[in-house]
Amino acid sequence: MDKKTVGLSDNLKNSTSPKSLTKNPIKGTKFTIAISSAKGGVGKSTFAMNFALALKSIGLRVGILDADIYGPSLPKMMSINEKPKSEDGKSLTPIEQYGIQCISIGFLVDEETPMIWRGPMVTSAIKTFTQKVLWNNLDFIVVDMPPGTGDTQLTFAQEIKVDGVIIVSTPQEIALSDVKRGIRMFDKLKVPILGLVDNMSFFESEDGKKYNIFGEGGVEKLSTNYKKKFLGKIPINIDLRVAADTGKPLVEKSPNHEISKIFIEIAKKIKGSYL
Amino acid sequence: MDKKTVGLSDNLKNSTSPKSLTKNPIKGTKFTIAISSAKGGVGKSTFAMNFALALKSIGLRVGILDADIYGPSLPKMMSINEKPKSEDGKSLTPIEQYGIQCISIGFLVDEETPMIWRGPMVTSAIKTFTQKVLWNNLDFIVVDMPPGTGDTQLTFAQEIKVDGVIIVSTPQEIALSDVKRGIRMFDKLKVPILGLVDNMSFFESEDGKKYNIFGEGGVEKLSTNYKKKFLGKIPINIDLRVAADTGKPLVEKSPNHEISKIFIEIAKKIKGSYL
Repeated sequence: MDKKTVGLSDNLKNSTSPKSLTKNPIKGTKFTIAISSAKGGVGKSTFAMNFALALKSIGLRVGILDADIYGPSLPKMMSINEKPKSEDGKSLTPIEQYGIQCISIGFLVDEETPMIWRGPMVTSAIKTFTQKVLWNNLDFIVVDMPPGTGDTQLTFAQEIKVDGVIIVSTPQEIALSDVKRGIRMFDKLKVPILGLVDNMSFFESEDGKKYNIFGEGGVEKLSTNYKKKFLGKIPINIDLRVAADTGKPLVEKSPNHEISKIFIEIAKKIKGSYL
Repeated sequence: MDKKTVGLSDNLKNSTSPKSLTKNPIKGTKFTIAISSAKGGVGKSTFAMNFALALKSIGLRVGILDADIYGPSLPKMMSINEKPKSEDGKSLTPIEQYGIQCISIGFLVDEETPMIWRGPMVTSAIKTFTQKVLWNNLDFIVVDMPPGTGDTQLTFAQEIKVDGVIIVSTPQEIALSDVKRGIRMFDKLKVPILGLVDNMSFFESEDGKKYNIFGEGGVEKLSTNYKKKFLGKIPINIDLRVAADTGKPLVEKSPNHEISKIFIEIAKKIKGSYL
């Protein structure tokens, strides 16, 4: 065992070690929460948007930083079709939608333009978003991370004070391997893991039968094994997908929907850890 | 209109222009087919493994190169738990499983170790896999690409003779934005697109009702709009997921399964374009 950590519980280590590094918070924000998944396509962006709106619905000031340079989802999911303004030619003013301050590479290029960029270009875009955007007095900034364990993750972990990460996964075995790698990465980079979410947990057909399309219980079990909090299950839900596809996330469109309530519960848990 | 292309149909352009560049094929292989998706989590790896096994089932010699450095799926999906041998300390011998020659970064590290690498390291791993692996007399090598439009895609497009790419997507709107970017990238990099596959197309419950969980018809419509071939629909299927999770892809485990037949049909179409 490492001498320095003797006598510290895992919780204490998580809560103290990041503070001992000299990483900067994103200017204009109090807490940075990254939404990560290691594996793509598990509903991370849908989670990020709805989670941000859930934080807003409980009275917080929130921003979303879309850090997925290769596959930005924010413009479509939040119905944003304008370019951010720059007053001084250096900084960018985030675009406000549904009461949330937003930035995405998708605001700067048209929908179909691929960002055929090698890593250093991605790093530079991320730095612009964290250093040059005029976030205004936010309680939380929610960062929608890209899949993987590469340049974007490293840039955030090394240069930004990330206060916590929520790991979203679907429950199938092959996704869980990626989650394990994600947990190990954030532990290694000393970014506290706030908890795991089991997304697309099951599908309920109209006759009330539940189908474990992607398997069952894997994420919760993993949380236990790795001693991480389990934040909740979100079923596969067509309303949730349609809301994201049509540009008004479910929590904003139907705050009383049973699925919206799950997001609001998770938002309350996270708020409680900080404020 | 560009003067050089006057009088050439799109098909002809696709089939001639890549040959005029001096990119090298992967040694020991005849044709390189990349499976791509721009967006992660659409079932690309499940598609790649089953497609490779479908090519084998119609009498071809096939390899799989797992190019997803951050989230390798091959070891688990193909039940491979050994390290590749190196006779001379420089080259790697691929591991044969179910009659397929396989390589993956997952063979070289344990399951839970994250590859916390910036782009140039990824590029270097890809070059090892394309230049230092002793592929033995393959008709087709199937490359399971990572999501995105970054280092791995660029390295393949610029240095390897990629004979064609199959783009896999789920039908929801937000995935289709990524597909459009993917199409534009491959067109720009002059990699011929063999066609699009609509994956997780619908879910059929036990009472025979169909649910368009991820929407309907989007991939086929996109194929038409972009003048690309539509290769087929693959429904959400628990057998398919379970087979991948338990290490024996469905086409190998149950070649007569209705889903396996879809893969074999697609394999026949692709074979027909080359051999």
